[in-house]
Amino acid sequence: MYVDIGNALDAEPRLTRATLERLDERVADAHDRIERGRADAAHGYAALNLPDTADPDAVRAAVDRFDDPAAVLTVGIGGSALGAATLAEALGGDGLDHYVLDNVDPAHVDALLDSLPLGDTVVHVVSRSGTTAETLANFLIVREAMDRAGVDWTRRTLVTTGADGNLRELAARHDLPALDVPAGVPGRFSALSTVALPVAALAGHDVDALLDGARAEADRLAGSLFDSPAYAYGAVCYALERRGAAINAMVPYAESLEYFAEWFAQLWAESLGKDAVGQTPARALGATDQHSQLQLYRAGPRDKLVTLVRPRERPRIPIPETDLDGLAYLGGGSLGDLLDAEFRATEASLAAANCPNVRIELDRIDERGVGELLYGMEAACVLYGELAGVETFTQPAVEWGKRAARGLLGGGDFEEADAVGEKRRLVVD
Amino acid sequence: MYVDIGNALDAEPRLTRATLERLDERVADAHDRIERGRADAAHGYAALNLPDTADPDAVRAAVDRFDDPAAVLTVGIGGSALGAATLAEALGGDGLDHYVLDNVDPAHVDALLDSLPLGDTVVHVVSRSGTTAETLANFLIVREAMDRAGVDWTRRTLVTTGADGNLRELAARHDLPALDVPAGVPGRFSALSTVALPVAALAGHDVDALLDGARAEADRLAGSLFDSPAYAYGAVCYALERRGAAINAMVPYAESLEYFAEWFAQLWAESLGKDAVGQTPARALGATDQHSQLQLYRAGPRDKLVTLVRPRERPRIPIPETDLDGLAYLGGGSLGDLLDAEFRATEASLAAANCPNVRIELDRIDERGVGELLYGMEAACVLYGELAGVETFTQPAVEWGKRAARGLLGGGDFEEADAVGEKRRLVVD
Repeated sequence: MYVDIGNALDAEPRLTRATLERLDERVADAHDRIERGRADAAHGYAALNLPDTADPDAVRAAVDRFDDPAAVLTVGIGGSALGAATLAEALGGDGLDHYVLDNVDPAHVDALLDSLPLGDTVVHVVSRSGTTAETLANFLIVREAMDRAGVDWTRRTLVTTGADGNLRELAARHDLPALDVPAGVPGRFSALSTVALPVAALAGHDVDALLDGARAEADRLAGSLFDSPAYAYGAVCYALERRGAAINAMVPYAESLEYFAEWFAQLWAESLGKDAVGQTPARALGATDQHSQLQLYRAGPRDKLVTLVRPRERPRIPIPETDLDGLAYLGGGSLGDLLDAEFRATEASLAAANCPNVRIELDRIDERGVGELLYGMEAACVLYGELAGVETFTQPAVEWGKRAARGLLGGGDFEEADAVGEKRRLVVD
Repeated sequence: MYVDIGNALDAEPRLTRATLERLDERVADAHDRIERGRADAAHGYAALNLPDTADPDAVRAAVDRFDDPAAVLTVGIGGSALGAATLAEALGGDGLDHYVLDNVDPAHVDALLDSLPLGDTVVHVVSRSGTTAETLANFLIVREAMDRAGVDWTRRTLVTTGADGNLRELAARHDLPALDVPAGVPGRFSALSTVALPVAALAGHDVDALLDGARAEADRLAGSLFDSPAYAYGAVCYALERRGAAINAMVPYAESLEYFAEWFAQLWAESLGKDAVGQTPARALGATDQHSQLQLYRAGPRDKLVTLVRPRERPRIPIPETDLDGLAYLGGGSLGDLLDAEFRATEASLAAANCPNVRIELDRIDERGVGELLYGMEAACVLYGELAGVETFTQPAVEWGKRAARGLLGGGDFEEADAVGEKRRLVVD
């Protein structure tokens, strides 16, 4: 992973090289804390050890019994789904279609069950506790659909869960392959573990290369932001947020990284959004969103950092020669040339408008590159959290709504559910 | 469309009913300007006349020659693609798969061409000028792929374009069905026109009902925000942005409205992001992103409005009865009950955290409901632009990058291209 922060300096909000050099002392301290956390395998910090603690053999063994399936369906939500979706989209299916069932939208579930080849699908259910309402409700529905279709769900189901709970018991009772969620790793930091690696293994991707990429990025963590790509990114994001960049627009120039941007949005929002601070992630896609968001980034409020991501190598598709009016310049070039010209033009156009931006590059979007990218963003996030002094690895603010929903559904007596009934209304219709 | 702004008042940023009542005088003035613009069919305002000026018969006639295709591929970018994608996803395909080719990512184009049934696909090329680089490059590649596959592209191609230019000439030369882009309607306001309606018509949806829904919302535009759902929403967004809600998180509680959120993000960003103002749209999805963004919305900076959208009616999928530990409360209910409980719980949890939020409801996600929703958001956006005093219908800031990219590709001599070479670098790798 290459991180170029040149365009993040001396723009608006204004961040100078001198400021970064002063910040670097705090980066060194934060790095020490992170290294201690890793050495103790402390909650959250343990995620940064996954390149060494994840067990690719166990993952491969667990998926081995599924013989050349047509599809894999991840049933999970949040961090239990986004990592798998990110890997599946970035690395491609190689003939294996990947579906995610995270939402509990009946219209969507209906359509999905209609289109899935149930008899030839591996269902991967992921929930640490085994009680996540959305995940378990969806799993019950999928299981029933398999029963109805005469498919033996016990031969099509893989589980990743904690040491006990519903899914663990179910696995024991029906002899399902079951993987352990890694200890001390919050869901949003679990892509490089048993939570998401099974999807990559099922598609025949090189899980070791994924972890090698992550390890290479881990090896670059150092006591100075000028020596570590991940820390350079995290420190710049933190420093710019403090100066007014309340928004971080994540803009990969690659369709296959769309889910990555969504994964990043969870990582950033849930880790850093606390104590009235935290950059809001905005997802976009290059070059498409030049025709959607760029006007705002260039001419709107000066409250943004734009992060541009691209691979250095792309497949080559030539653009046919053409005599169409005004388009001769395109002919004979390649589609990748066009996309990369747009990437550089957008980057420069942001700089010309004084909008700070960072360039992140990978050699290629392959197992190694994706391992570097995911690990790099996780380490950047952990550093940012240290610098901001927030509890990076918790998400206390989501509990209120969970209790309220449970109360509404008759799952217990919760005062939050009573508050729902007191909604202030001012309806215009 | 029902708009409930009760939870947008007296939160943080603080907006009071009294402030809205004072603002209502300016809403009346803005409404007068909008009505004059509509009466003159002035640039941009003409979009709000589409319920009456769009010609569903012409759309149906243009797609009539394509006999029961398996897929439709929209080749366009920005407003020339997002409307079609929004309609196709919201209304469903009814056996017709919809694909969008907007980006110029060679890896993606490769994969798409591999999976498309080229001989049974309708290609809808959309570009007002006929010179949009991404659209024409992609079209040239698709055309060549059809040639190579022995498919007569002239029998599979539909065009929507301006009165002259490359696509118009191509249509004349090869006798392609060609629709006119509506006059005075910027791309991001063109969903209810020849730009996106052909996709709905191809899938057999009721185009008249779409326009009826839009017309119903048009009929509710009035001189007071308290009488018009669209204006209530636009006025609240504007007033909250002025008070510090720099971000508008658009959160439909329906998988089939994911593209709608993307369409909204373009509408909002490109129309309002100018003169150093403009709310930044952030896209999310309920209930999924409760496990991703909600922590930030509740506990992060007080710079957000959250917009929650849902249909009042959903299909019913029962959740099977279960004896799983702690989940008995789910059994016997329906998936829609769970989703709606989460909707109400999230709404209340935002209110309890003092985060302003608006509820938008449709009767159903069908042609009429989608027509109401799209028109309502467009009218809200136009009102917001009037109140903010920006040029809602232009996007001048994107030109810089277009010239730079063109220069880089050898398409002319542009000083912007020279600036690209002067990039400041500070690479950490």
